[in-house]
Amino acid sequence: MPEDGLPDCALPERAFGRLAIVGLGLIGSSIARAARANGLAGTIVAIDRDAGVIGRVRALGLAEEATQDVAAGVAGADLVILCVPVGAAGAVAAAMAGALKPGAIVSDVGSVKAAVVAAVAPHLPPHAAFVPAHPVAGTEQSGPDAGFATLFQGRWCILTPPEGADPQAVARVRAFWEGMGSVVETMTPAHHDLVLAITSHVPHLIAYNIVGTAADLETVTQSEVIKFSAGGFRDFTRIAASDPTMWRDVFLTNKDAVLEMLGRFNEDLAALARAIRWDDGEALHALFTRTRAIRRGIVAMGQETAEPDFGRRGPAPQGTAPPPLAGREP
Amino acid sequence: MPEDGLPDCALPERAFGRLAIVGLGLIGSSIARAARANGLAGTIVAIDRDAGVIGRVRALGLAEEATQDVAAGVAGADLVILCVPVGAAGAVAAAMAGALKPGAIVSDVGSVKAAVVAAVAPHLPPHAAFVPAHPVAGTEQSGPDAGFATLFQGRWCILTPPEGADPQAVARVRAFWEGMGSVVETMTPAHHDLVLAITSHVPHLIAYNIVGTAADLETVTQSEVIKFSAGGFRDFTRIAASDPTMWRDVFLTNKDAVLEMLGRFNEDLAALARAIRWDDGEALHALFTRTRAIRRGIVAMGQETAEPDFGRRGPAPQGTAPPPLAGREP
Repeated sequence: MPEDGLPDCALPERAFGRLAIVGLGLIGSSIARAARANGLAGTIVAIDRDAGVIGRVRALGLAEEATQDVAAGVAGADLVILCVPVGAAGAVAAAMAGALKPGAIVSDVGSVKAAVVAAVAPHLPPHAAFVPAHPVAGTEQSGPDAGFATLFQGRWCILTPPEGADPQAVARVRAFWEGMGSVVETMTPAHHDLVLAITSHVPHLIAYNIVGTAADLETVTQSEVIKFSAGGFRDFTRIAASDPTMWRDVFLTNKDAVLEMLGRFNEDLAALARAIRWDDGEALHALFTRTRAIRRGIVAMGQETAEPDFGRRGPAPQGTAPPPLAGREP
Repeated sequence: MPEDGLPDCALPERAFGRLAIVGLGLIGSSIARAARANGLAGTIVAIDRDAGVIGRVRALGLAEEATQDVAAGVAGADLVILCVPVGAAGAVAAAMAGALKPGAIVSDVGSVKAAVVAAVAPHLPPHAAFVPAHPVAGTEQSGPDAGFATLFQGRWCILTPPEGADPQAVARVRAFWEGMGSVVETMTPAHHDLVLAITSHVPHLIAYNIVGTAADLETVTQSEVIKFSAGGFRDFTRIAASDPTMWRDVFLTNKDAVLEMLGRFNEDLAALARAIRWDDGEALHALFTRTRAIRRGIVAMGQETAEPDFGRRGPAPQGTAPPPLAGREP
């Protein structure tokens, strides 16, 4: 592990002198790697309450400093990014708030935004700026060993700055994510939560659900399910292998939007089941033709390659990705 | 296009002298390519009611003979494989039955078996053997241009021979699929339909459904759905781009098993929604942990690579795939 970060004068203008990352799981450890690879931080401070994780951070050389003490870790940081399950964000914010330096920017990576803003914002001192963020990226792996520096390359990152947020702080967080290769979009927390409910949360919920249903059958054995999973089921199991704690928190904190979208999904599914029961082949064919067209739209917009990847990789949205910064030797 | 096939004496023992393929879509055209690449047929006869498809078959050189007349096409064939949507199998069987030569073997590739057996068997003359088959392979592409010779390599093919089926005919169909690289399993039509309902049909149904739901939202635009589809939704759209006619027929002909499995899926989903509404984080965490273990089982059994592919590729089941036959020049 390097003993010290680069002096600030050697960093590009958009870099932060001192970057504190709270929670070194898949996302947090990927930020550490990507920030270093792209020269976006002078000193990286890794904070995790789990001593085992801190041990792995040290062994992997992911940060200049590593500590279990969140208040000590964020002291003096220019940017603090919370990479903990959304259900834990409020408690972490409370624990660190008193140690934030004037002008510090606090951000996060939560898949839910309204609940995180409500949980975190009240704890922050007026001299800190809060710029919530959500990188739409991940894999079904977890932990500090699972991260990698290119996870955010060509992927969307959604910022949900509160009304009246300091424009300079928002611009710096945007530049940070663009520096890691992301394409940045801004929207309100409430709208973010609706969009993600349909594009991510409900898909995860029904994937978890069908894998559970398949596991509980008496008429089909688990080994048959596994054997013949290539017919479509297999990729649902990939989604359904995502981190249980993270996803529990997502569903509990984005409850309204998830239940609203799920209600619509259920209505539509009931209509589809009815069409099957009553031999309404025309209705089925019409839906299946329409969904095919939507897929073509996704391919046409450059949002998909020939390889499905559950959002693990994927091409840069055409013409919008910023050029990556030159890498910096670790 | 070659003018003639190889003389029978030049073929390996397991090859068929004259192979008739009815329906040159993705699967039919892949069989034509794979049979030729692996030297499994002397003469390949392509039969399709669509003149445009016959034109493509000729242009691509997929068969020695090509015709729109099913009775003329199957005359003299040693093996006839129906590669039409399962809803059309009965009518095709009726049209060709009178032209089948004594000793001909009839097979198919339908994703549903009980309904196909019921629709096809009554039409076949006693001097023909019926060995239904289902290669668990496919892509979301359709038509004769979409096929490829390695589609069945390392993939399961399920045979559902009726009681009292000629063991020699079953053995020859098994050898044919093994010759194309498949791993062959045998089960009853009813059990096949249950297994595929949960591993393939219901997953396709809920994928079609959520893509439809997303398309109909007023609060989230289609362009937002497309943009942020990497969070999980994107791969559902891939499944939901599969052939509409094929899938309409699958749901209508495997209605009982699909509705039964869908009923269980819905019960489980209702319980999950209730756990979200009532903040039962423990129940959510327990399910999400259990599904993760099932995924590990699939990976451990060699049924998945690091790359999700919706069953498009995938490794050969370990230690069970036969070595491919030497290729034959077209």
